Amino acid sequence: MSLHSIKYENGTLYILDQLLLPAQSKYVQIKGVEDGWKVINKMQVRGAPAIAIVGCLSLAVEIKDEKYDCKKSMRQDVEGKLNYLVSSRPTAVNMKLAADELLSLINKMCDDDGFSIEKMKERFVMVVEEMLNKDISDNKSIGDYGAKEILSHFSGDTNLRILTHCNTGSLATAGYGTALGVIRSLFALKRLEHVYCTETRPYNQGARLTAYELVHEKIPATLIVDSMVAALMRLRNVSAVVVGADRVAANGDTANKIGTYQIAVLAKFHNVPFYVAAPFTSIDAKILSGDHIVIEERPEQEMTHVGEHRIAAKGISCWNPAFDVTPAGLIAGIITERGVFKPNDLLKALNCQVE
Amino acid sequence: MSLHSIKYENGTLYILDQLLLPAQSKYVQIKGVEDGWKVINKMQVRGAPAIAIVGCLSLAVEIKDEKYDCKKSMRQDVEGKLNYLVSSRPTAVNMKLAADELLSLINKMCDDDGFSIEKMKERFVMVVEEMLNKDISDNKSIGDYGAKEILSHFSGDTNLRILTHCNTGSLATAGYGTALGVIRSLFALKRLEHVYCTETRPYNQGARLTAYELVHEKIPATLIVDSMVAALMRLRNVSAVVVGADRVAANGDTANKIGTYQIAVLAKFHNVPFYVAAPFTSIDAKILSGDHIVIEERPEQEMTHVGEHRIAAKGISCWNPAFDVTPAGLIAGIITERGVFKPNDLLKALNCQVE
Repeated sequence: MSLHSIKYENGTLYILDQLLLPAQSKYVQIKGVEDGWKVINKMQVRGAPAIAIVGCLSLAVEIKDEKYDCKKSMRQDVEGKLNYLVSSRPTAVNMKLAADELLSLINKMCDDDGFSIEKMKERFVMVVEEMLNKDISDNKSIGDYGAKEILSHFSGDTNLRILTHCNTGSLATAGYGTALGVIRSLFALKRLEHVYCTETRPYNQGARLTAYELVHEKIPATLIVDSMVAALMRLRNVSAVVVGADRVAANGDTANKIGTYQIAVLAKFHNVPFYVAAPFTSIDAKILSGDHIVIEERPEQEMTHVGEHRIAAKGISCWNPAFDVTPAGLIAGIITERGVFKPNDLLKALNCQVE
Repeated sequence: MSLHSIKYENGTLYILDQLLLPAQSKYVQIKGVEDGWKVINKMQVRGAPAIAIVGCLSLAVEIKDEKYDCKKSMRQDVEGKLNYLVSSRPTAVNMKLAADELLSLINKMCDDDGFSIEKMKERFVMVVEEMLNKDISDNKSIGDYGAKEILSHFSGDTNLRILTHCNTGSLATAGYGTALGVIRSLFALKRLEHVYCTETRPYNQGARLTAYELVHEKIPATLIVDSMVAALMRLRNVSAVVVGADRVAANGDTANKIGTYQIAVLAKFHNVPFYVAAPFTSIDAKILSGDHIVIEERPEQEMTHVGEHRIAAKGISCWNPAFDVTPAGLIAGIITERGVFKPNDLLKALNCQVE
């Protein structure tokens, strides 16, 4: 069975507790927004798309059985709970965007006499379920476009060896994944020979989560530490690199998990094409270039400790940027659910959308 | 006080137990070859030069008080114990070379009527002490040549920002260190602004040992994980990279800790000069190029676990090469105790030595 970080059926919601991975695979039931807030805040669920979906679903689960006196009190309740959910992770932009969308929906229905409280509930739950399904179907499109693009550069009988970084799979999204979605599509097409995933220090998303997904899906895979990328490219004939994105600037510069820029440079040196896979919404037309992206620095503890166990010498200072920026010039293509764009063509694609 | 991994004074020998670092700094007394064999075998002392010195010193300590019937029985005893010490780590080439040297010394003295048993003992201990001192003074020369070379590319008032990888310091040698010796010399000259040391996964020699040495010596330093090298070079203006070497081929190709090649590629891309620092004996005239260096692969456990704690998903395969080869073309200079050589000039230097 395919791995699901979010299980939602007939109004019942469970999430896979990612804090326990890879040691334990345990699902936690989410009975309402309070549970939703907690699992997001404690990082039992992570990945921007997954956070938004779990937050909205936790509200859908809760309002289903809620008794409201009038439409206005429902509107008020929903607004308050959306704000509460947005506060669960300060940087969860996707949750904020989803909350805005749902708030405008509830306002519209509140003013529309055609909607009873029951109909408002039904419609609200339906829209949230659509969000869940859209994220998965967008990821599948990303996977298919990406696989097609990469395969177009190889002859019909070549099976590919792909390198990826961090976790961009079912665990970070509503399902299927972005960069890992491309890998999944290649595997489904029987054109994948092997995947290499980096450990992704200091938080080890590759070793803990991507490796877990690859083992679960029985995709042939090997874990390497982050310093082995160049040796791998030199000795093991990597066909392409595919990574995710936290944000893509209008010129194609891409912010992603620390280490991504380094892999892009190494790919350039070894003539390995380097792709970014992300939903079109990750492209931010308002950010002109990577220079305008602020780099978050994370606590030193993430580097000096594994769990409670100190691994670095006492007293040493650490530099712990959470992500880095890969210049557009190092990127062969940006794979989205609307197709694959050369970084240079992004502006045109964004303008088309605005018009 | 400067950090000593080996304390040897008036015939008494202690080593700093590196298995306990960085959590505890504890010295262990070595009373003879059995203790010496154990601390080398259990990796309480590591680093090829350090292993050889500790092995030989453990023998010097032992024979000092030994009662011998005749010179021949002393010769026999020393030969047996040297063989025993060589067996402590299968790949410890330096211990083998040192054992050969000491064996030929003892044979010579055995045949020379000018040497009594007491004189043989004295001379033997003296030669071992010379080995210890030569390793330290060679390292100091490496440090001084390296500092001078790197500084020659900068104006007189620029203080340097150096990146290093793995551990090449007092803990890996008899003292002072090779690449870390260059950093130490720059610091002594008050021309060092900052050192960055990589974590060096999977065995974390950077985070555990280099960071420990830098904190101990109060050298301004920051730890980064291995995937931050490119971001560091882009954002923090690195003046030069200095690393050690396991072996240098006659053409300058250099085998060193995994990740070294990757840093060399990133240095090239960012126009940062990349230096190798190693004793001249690390240059192997019989190895024509890096293609002839076999890459040792280490157990997966090193990558999947930190101590007893599993950090990677169960069932994932790992690739764990212990070192990689940096092509000569990426190396600005090879810093030895005899001076700094361009990779192209190595053959000439080696031939001079043979003649």
